[in-house]
Amino acid sequence: MRFTSEQRLDDGVLEREFTLGDIPGILWTSGTVSAPAPLILLGHPGGLRRMYPRLLDRARQSTADGFAAATIELPGSGDRPRIAATEQARADLRRAMEAGEPVGAEIVDRLVLPLVETSVPEWQAALNALLSLPEIGGPVGYSGGVIAIGTRLAAVEPRISAAVLFAGSFVPAATFEEARQVTVPLHVLLQWDDEGNDRQAALDLFDAFGSREKTLHANLGGHTGVPPYAGEAAARFFARHLT
Amino acid sequence: MRFTSEQRLDDGVLEREFTLGDIPGILWTSGTVSAPAPLILLGHPGGLRRMYPRLLDRARQSTADGFAAATIELPGSGDRPRIAATEQARADLRRAMEAGEPVGAEIVDRLVLPLVETSVPEWQAALNALLSLPEIGGPVGYSGGVIAIGTRLAAVEPRISAAVLFAGSFVPAATFEEARQVTVPLHVLLQWDDEGNDRQAALDLFDAFGSREKTLHANLGGHTGVPPYAGEAAARFFARHLT
Repeated sequence: MRFTSEQRLDDGVLEREFTLGDIPGILWTSGTVSAPAPLILLGHPGGLRRMYPRLLDRARQSTADGFAAATIELPGSGDRPRIAATEQARADLRRAMEAGEPVGAEIVDRLVLPLVETSVPEWQAALNALLSLPEIGGPVGYSGGVIAIGTRLAAVEPRISAAVLFAGSFVPAATFEEARQVTVPLHVLLQWDDEGNDRQAALDLFDAFGSREKTLHANLGGHTGVPPYAGEAAARFFARHLT
Repeated sequence: MRFTSEQRLDDGVLEREFTLGDIPGILWTSGTVSAPAPLILLGHPGGLRRMYPRLLDRARQSTADGFAAATIELPGSGDRPRIAATEQARADLRRAMEAGEPVGAEIVDRLVLPLVETSVPEWQAALNALLSLPEIGGPVGYSGGVIAIGTRLAAVEPRISAAVLFAGSFVPAATFEEARQVTVPLHVLLQWDDEGNDRQAALDLFDAFGSREKTLHANLGGHTGVPPYAGEAAARFFARHLT
């Protein structure tokens, strides 16, 4: 991991961009805490620049709560090289949605499964690097989408102690099986009127998770309309489980 | 309304039993607040004595948050005279459940609809009496089950400003229609593994509510297994809307 830039934000948060091999990432830490901080990995649908304002909001909440927060770019997104098969799947998905057709499982698998295969080891590599920093301790939480990535990561990575998953993306059938392997405390956010989201699939996935403590917070509104109090509730969930 | 007993609890909360005509009830107020307090009506499935420990927990939370809390007995429950038709419907329901049969809409209607018809005007009468007390102001929230009662009350009683509804009881078809008339902010609690509860009906009812702000908090566990953090989240909802 190599830090490429560093700036102190107006509220004292230290924001550092880094690269991990070819993967760009951002680390946010509180400027004021000296003890190693628990870490929250901020998941997102890809495109760090586009997602930056919302990621920063979540990072500010995390650092205010005493955590460090970090994210990395997804394969094929942002400044990373495009992946032809993913681009094709995304185009097929868009075409189906614009035509008002149901999105077939085959397209979802082609779009999401390779992303899960590639990105989960990358998040784990980032975790190795981040946890070696003196300012970061544990435990570790994962927060956000893509829900298939968060599910796989929570299932296979024992250093993830709790997860806030955002039910706002397509779910491959394989993810339902992996969900049964997840045992960490879960807090699932569902936007009830999410245009691009299959509500029933989200409810079925929530049902499938093996965790003994799991909570679903459904709120009225579309994909980007998560109300502020829902974000605060997710923050309280991490405060309960990571401190 | 006639107060029949008064005691100061160890944490300073003033607990007063009252009767409203033939209906027994309990009012809890903070011993320390002088300004008129907003009021939370505590709904329950009937049987004040049996429900008392849980009602008291909720009342303590309410008074700690600066509210007054009150409840009344349901028709046909507790110390109130039994209602033959309700007893018959309850027996039919029990028989169906013990036989592992689906509970027919006809039984649910016979059990719940008369309860709604009778109890909603009683809650409104209690509201008249309670709001005439100098120590109680507004706004007013309704919290708890029976969800068909809470739904009707929220639909027809303009003094109810927000409601926490507990999806843990059978829902007559008529309640889905009434739900569309509800416009106040709603916070719905659903126990995901509630033995006596139809999860899909609860989700459909949540979907039907006309409110622009509505949140569903689903937690793992059975009917009485609502986790403490879910109660705290409901309390924060009232703090947002009643103060």
